[in-house]
Amino acid sequence: MPRPLITLCTDFGLRDSYVGQMKGAILAIHPEAVLVDLTHAIAPRDIVQGACVLEDSIAAFPENTLHVVVVDPGVGGERRIVAVEMAGQRFVAPDNGVLSRVAQRHPPTHIVAVREPRFWRTTVSNTFHGRDIMGPVAAHWSLGHAIDEFGPPLDALIPLAWEPPRREGNDLIGTVLWSDRFGNLVTNLHVTQFANADWSELRVRIGDTELQGVHRFYSEQPCGELIALVGSSGRLEVAVVCGNAAERLGLTSGAEVRVSGLPAEPPQ
Amino acid sequence: MPRPLITLCTDFGLRDSYVGQMKGAILAIHPEAVLVDLTHAIAPRDIVQGACVLEDSIAAFPENTLHVVVVDPGVGGERRIVAVEMAGQRFVAPDNGVLSRVAQRHPPTHIVAVREPRFWRTTVSNTFHGRDIMGPVAAHWSLGHAIDEFGPPLDALIPLAWEPPRREGNDLIGTVLWSDRFGNLVTNLHVTQFANADWSELRVRIGDTELQGVHRFYSEQPCGELIALVGSSGRLEVAVVCGNAAERLGLTSGAEVRVSGLPAEPPQ
Amino acid sequence: MPRPLITLCTDFGLRDSYVGQMKGAILAIHPEAVLVDLTHAIAPRDIVQGACVLEDSIAAFPENTLHVVVVDPGVGGERRIVAVEMAGQRFVAPDNGVLSRVAQRHPPTHIVAVREPRFWRTTVSNTFHGRDIMGPVAAHWSLGHAIDEFGPPLDALIPLAWEPPRREGNDLIGTVLWSDRFGNLVTNLHVTQFANADWSELRVRIGDTELQGVHRFYSEQPCGELIALVGSSGRLEVAVVCGNAAERLGLTSGAEVRVSGLPAEPPQ
Repeated sequence: MPRPLITLCTDFGLRDSYVGQMKGAILAIHPEAVLVDLTHAIAPRDIVQGACVLEDSIAAFPENTLHVVVVDPGVGGERRIVAVEMAGQRFVAPDNGVLSRVAQRHPPTHIVAVREPRFWRTTVSNTFHGRDIMGPVAAHWSLGHAIDEFGPPLDALIPLAWEPPRREGNDLIGTVLWSDRFGNLVTNLHVTQFANADWSELRVRIGDTELQGVHRFYSEQPCGELIALVGSSGRLEVAVVCGNAAERLGLTSGAEVRVSGLPAEPPQ
Repeated sequence: MPRPLITLCTDFGLRDSYVGQMKGAILAIHPEAVLVDLTHAIAPRDIVQGACVLEDSIAAFPENTLHVVVVDPGVGGERRIVAVEMAGQRFVAPDNGVLSRVAQRHPPTHIVAVREPRFWRTTVSNTFHGRDIMGPVAAHWSLGHAIDEFGPPLDALIPLAWEPPRREGNDLIGTVLWSDRFGNLVTNLHVTQFANADWSELRVRIGDTELQGVHRFYSEQPCGELIALVGSSGRLEVAVVCGNAAERLGLTSGAEVRVSGLPAEPPQ
Repeated sequence: MPRPLITLCTDFGLRDSYVGQMKGAILAIHPEAVLVDLTHAIAPRDIVQGACVLEDSIAAFPENTLHVVVVDPGVGGERRIVAVEMAGQRFVAPDNGVLSRVAQRHPPTHIVAVREPRFWRTTVSNTFHGRDIMGPVAAHWSLGHAIDEFGPPLDALIPLAWEPPRREGNDLIGTVLWSDRFGNLVTNLHVTQFANADWSELRVRIGDTELQGVHRFYSEQPCGELIALVGSSGRLEVAVVCGNAAERLGLTSGAEVRVSGLPAEPPQ
């Protein structure tokens, strides 16, 4: 059996030892697991960001990868924890919408409510279920347990509480999800929503600025130029070539983005 | 033999390649070692924070885990480096108090002064003993060497230079150790110090604020509420539900915290 | 065969899932690879910093280590990607100068242009060749492929666009490369350039300050003292003992550093 791959995606940051403790709890159960940090910089309690980062990332991982996703503002309360099979991969997370973006693209084949304490740490804290429940369940899952052992089946996941992109005539309206390390403003608009348009004819409005055309890569344009382009996960981004669009525009997550000049929608 | 687990806890941050170099030096000696970052965000030279983070974290790791702790303001000078067995786990660190919190809870079974250069890098720098001495010693230790091979035995570790929590009548007085990623103010007061009290009757004073009761998890209270609770490592914390207490209160490490309403202490 | 060691050195930061995705792409090809983060905090697009960090770090890694270096402002454009053998180790990077500091010290034994798409991800994005080309090539290389399989040989790497240190009479003039986690100002001046001088007689000028002597470690001097010393990679640094020189002096990368009092240069 090859060594199983487990990724961690959390809002824990790297300031504290929380991520380290989760890894200790996993490796205590399965010392051969290979752990990869997807990111720990999801904004605190930002379920939408977690859901979209996960949506962007899983295609890079091999079949059967196990993803533990801990963006969990309801920890200790009534919210469920779920184990899910979808997209040929495996997920353990609170059932708060954080898995919903992946689930929308790749409908789950199995969902269970995580209920069997024999797969948890002996002592479970009230505030750290990543270390005490979700990590250990992933570790046991990676050892070969079947998903049904972790708890009873569920029919569906809780949907994401967000406002999805919308059409208005020939416009598509979305929002900035986050600014990345390079200051690129990453949006919830996806290339599939304007793939059949002439990209050079599209206009992208953000803040007080309107940009002509959607580009394919940064170095197409000279340094300092503000451009719209499609990033490596298919999302529409607004970037400054060799620079930082978030700083230049003074914008961040939540800002509206409007793409104009789309072809008419096909009749329903 | 299962692959040995080695954790790293330092004040190196992740800006530079220092952590990467330490890992290279360890894997050059033992390529099968599994490395886990406990945290590298200990405040520069903050031995008390390092000691308390270590105290909070080791219970998550399996028996025999090797912890390399590099918070080392005296590097290059007279301070000793030690290898220690305690709590069923193994530690390599400067002997400056950083191991003292674990040692107080779990008295060491073996302590040696690290003195045998054959376990070090061939060239030892004056400023980076994490890479050149401590990492390599941990790597050799994980290969099966006995602790006695690294140097002569010692009777005791140097104690931590800090002011521990104190009692004043029915009050317990401590300090904020750090604010975590979520802005929770984490203190040096531990649940064992008030476990036999009625938590709803306790009052927690921090800055100009007095809080009634000690809670068990965040989502017990509505968003925006300032609460005292016991965190996942047993420490008393002050938190804002769905928010950031450090920002709200304008407080950080060093702030005084007073718990009132404790039962009288048992007669000595 | 021991598990191969692959390091990652990028300007991606840890805010996004870019590093996680690269690791997924590598482990999808070679699940037994051991991945080490050298650093992901190279300043965005700062090729000089990347080149110098790499120069400082590789000595800590064992023979045959594979380093993937992604500081790649020209991604998607005309710049080449190269695979290089030098210093007994292996490198995959854009050919933009980022490998040139290592190459100057350790002339390459093989260089090839990475051109064979069968070693890449099936779909290659325009903006993320770390995940789609460089990571996968490193993973295949670690599986035992020969360097020649990745593309045609090249004679030389593109040199680094930077101003190297210069002599002026008995002075040596360089610049600050970066300030590290501790606020130490790390320069492009190397101990080999003044090894034969009397260190106590050297004077180091930075900003408006002149320092007498070059020290060997921090704790030689009392807390608060501003000193020049040689760091763990042989670079001249300016530091405050127990403090932060970058903050004290208000200086950062690019600041001039002048070492005076060097012996006369030997006649040519």
